[in-house]
Amino acid sequence: MNFGIVRKLIGKIMVLIGVFMILPILVCLIYQEKLWNYMSFLIPSVSMVIIGLLLNIKKASPKMQAKEGLVIVALGWLVISLFGAVPLILSGYYPSFFDALFEITSGFTTTGASITSADLMAELNISGHSILFWRSFSHWIGGMGILVFILGIIPESDEGSSIQILRAESPGPQVGRLTSRMKASSRILYLIYIVLTSIEILLLLVGPNHEMSFFDTLIYAFGTAGTGGFANNPLSVEIYSPYYQYVIATFMFMFGVNFSLYYLILIRRTKEVFKNEELLTYLIIAASSILIISANIYSKCESFGETFRLAYFQTASIISTTGFSSTNFNNWPTLAKSILILLMVFGACAGSTAGGLKISRIVIIVKSAFAKVRGMVNPRKVQVIKVNGEVVSNETVSNVLSYTLIYVIVMVISGVLISIDGFDMTTNFSASLACISNIGPGLSVVGPYGSYADFSGFSKIILSLEMIAGRLELFPILILFSRNTWKKM
Amino acid sequence: MNFGIVRKLIGKIMVLIGVFMILPILVCLIYQEKLWNYMSFLIPSVSMVIIGLLLNIKKASPKMQAKEGLVIVALGWLVISLFGAVPLILSGYYPSFFDALFEITSGFTTTGASITSADLMAELNISGHSILFWRSFSHWIGGMGILVFILGIIPESDEGSSIQILRAESPGPQVGRLTSRMKASSRILYLIYIVLTSIEILLLLVGPNHEMSFFDTLIYAFGTAGTGGFANNPLSVEIYSPYYQYVIATFMFMFGVNFSLYYLILIRRTKEVFKNEELLTYLIIAASSILIISANIYSKCESFGETFRLAYFQTASIISTTGFSSTNFNNWPTLAKSILILLMVFGACAGSTAGGLKISRIVIIVKSAFAKVRGMVNPRKVQVIKVNGEVVSNETVSNVLSYTLIYVIVMVISGVLISIDGFDMTTNFSASLACISNIGPGLSVVGPYGSYADFSGFSKIILSLEMIAGRLELFPILILFSRNTWKKM
Repeated sequence: MNFGIVRKLIGKIMVLIGVFMILPILVCLIYQEKLWNYMSFLIPSVSMVIIGLLLNIKKASPKMQAKEGLVIVALGWLVISLFGAVPLILSGYYPSFFDALFEITSGFTTTGASITSADLMAELNISGHSILFWRSFSHWIGGMGILVFILGIIPESDEGSSIQILRAESPGPQVGRLTSRMKASSRILYLIYIVLTSIEILLLLVGPNHEMSFFDTLIYAFGTAGTGGFANNPLSVEIYSPYYQYVIATFMFMFGVNFSLYYLILIRRTKEVFKNEELLTYLIIAASSILIISANIYSKCESFGETFRLAYFQTASIISTTGFSSTNFNNWPTLAKSILILLMVFGACAGSTAGGLKISRIVIIVKSAFAKVRGMVNPRKVQVIKVNGEVVSNETVSNVLSYTLIYVIVMVISGVLISIDGFDMTTNFSASLACISNIGPGLSVVGPYGSYADFSGFSKIILSLEMIAGRLELFPILILFSRNTWKKM
Repeated sequence: MNFGIVRKLIGKIMVLIGVFMILPILVCLIYQEKLWNYMSFLIPSVSMVIIGLLLNIKKASPKMQAKEGLVIVALGWLVISLFGAVPLILSGYYPSFFDALFEITSGFTTTGASITSADLMAELNISGHSILFWRSFSHWIGGMGILVFILGIIPESDEGSSIQILRAESPGPQVGRLTSRMKASSRILYLIYIVLTSIEILLLLVGPNHEMSFFDTLIYAFGTAGTGGFANNPLSVEIYSPYYQYVIATFMFMFGVNFSLYYLILIRRTKEVFKNEELLTYLIIAASSILIISANIYSKCESFGETFRLAYFQTASIISTTGFSSTNFNNWPTLAKSILILLMVFGACAGSTAGGLKISRIVIIVKSAFAKVRGMVNPRKVQVIKVNGEVVSNETVSNVLSYTLIYVIVMVISGVLISIDGFDMTTNFSASLACISNIGPGLSVVGPYGSYADFSGFSKIILSLEMIAGRLELFPILILFSRNTWKKM
């Protein structure tokens, strides 16, 4: 283990987050908030920049293997969760350390599970816009990844180490490079991200009756882009008229698409986009879910239009693992809820900002299941799995199967652990699933209009770890517990 | 596909089941039941023997590959479920075809999920002992396997085809032969089975106050041996005093052990038994579950003795996938219920009469997960998985991972399908899990004192198919849906 490079990059992360905290300070200025709100951001901001710079004084070998990449990403995310929670604690709005940590971890990991009560939300809308901004902004940074950002701006980052970090932080079974140079790839990803976010802000700003202030549009655009889901009111998107719901839902779908496909469109290789199996499967799953849910909830709705809009929005929100809601789907019939649970497991495309298992893994799992059944009938014939016309190696298949099972195991064990608090089974397992898949709302107590507030400190830590493990696709967090990781080189 | 051998063996199965129906006819005699009860068994019995013999007139090539083995087992089990249900329908006790089919499929697959209401149970205890006997006897035949039985008695069965059938019908990732000859293996298995069952009957007969009649001891011994779970009263084992509960619980644990270990004890290779990783893991999981459940339910119980007994019995019942109950665990705190759900997934040892995933698969899954994490830290080092000191091939690992995921997929999809009936999520998913794992009772509506009666006919068919798929470890049923299976040779 090359501790030097780990130290340096953790330092860089701290400086960056410290700098990012200038933004909520600007919000304090605009909304003329009380002095202590400024200080709540200024104190951690300055501390992080100083500590970060100190960690970067001593030189270190840039040598780096997969192990270092994984450790940097894991520790980096733990550090930003811990320091990111400081403003929430200092400002005094959040009752306990566990609550603040849970809330901001939920922010950075783009989960959107919240312990903010309706009362606190009302208070924040009067005197704490900076806090609301920071929660939602954490979605936006966390969505594309803090380290992907650093890779795009650090001048001296070398190619070998960059790919290790990008692999560890980016979701999906196989990470490809967009261009031959990593730094260029990071920049292109962030550029697409910024452009899409800006278009959404614009579309929300020009909506009918101007129902959203500029501040509101930022909150919802950050929540959509990062597929996070924090809103700035307890009823989420339900309070807005259909135009806004359709804009947000459509962008949720769009941020669930692999960003490299947008790049392919930019460089006019559109044909490849429409042949992409993951995208097609994503669209088919979404369309079927909308259909089944519509049929199931139709009798409870007033019109066909309302039925479709509710099904469209909730499907977009859950499959993209965002977690906004336009209705209390906890009151839906069981079939519709079961479909949502399935979507929670699936997630959206690899290489997007979404969580969950990712459609590409689902495709490989289903294909390998069919291959096994065929193999039973013809034991002598070698069964080959192809995705996008290319053969998937046995190793990739085995990695996907392992990953999925570890995912299920972590989800189930966490669900059992938090059941110590005594909530019902639907609450526990949907909470565990909603956290590891970075969705946010689950069912029952943690439904869209419920809250995670009543869980114990112990359960909040478990769920926070699950959120980070889910965001980083398990292995970075899991290897922290392996003794071999900490051996000196 | 060699249709001839399929036809012949399906015929043999029908003859055998027809012959077995003589036993409930004897019960009719003993309890002097009404004439129509005799006829309800006699008509299907004679029909099956005749059809079975007709199917065996024409000669067939004995050539057989894995495919034929799987198809024979799958069709054989569908046939015995359909014909086994006939007495229940003819006798008039069971209201519909779906109910009778569900009940007897639950019997043969040793699930023990029941739609028999308390009223019907009372009626059967007056005028339908033969029906009660048939339900429970189906557990006993289904536990060890109808085809394993046939292999042990058919004179002309050849070695090549026998192993294909035994592989398809016996549970567990790897099926070994006890001796070099398959027929001898089948006989030894059934001999151990008969001896253990007889010991249990004896111990229950000599219990304090003779709480059980000979008929009762048969019912509970059949239910325990097959790890089935049908009782002949609505409160299951709760009505009996602790002695009986401990005897039944201990035998449930014992029937969850790989039968080849009993054979090893018989031939005095005891050392290998206590080094068997699956057995040790099974015992550790059982002991930890008893501990956690005891701690969790202690405050609800009257004494330490009662606490331990309840935890011991329910752990034995669920991990062995039997499904007897000595209390309504549906009222237990969530943690204890979550542990039971975990045990439902695990199941007991391969090569036993139990259902579920089997501990040996759990061992391989967990070891392969650790190997993956180690592999992330040292990508260049090849990670090897060992069980019982022997290296497990990559192919076996990949098969186990696939199998587990297909198991989860079938369970979840079935859970979604039956949610059309509108029951709560806990009911649907615990019902689906309890059926595919061949346990019987689930939670909520299908809890130990609940019933599957209110599910629709559609859901009963889905759950019945799940029971058979779970009993035969998926592939025999899955390949029925593959086009390649039905190609002529």
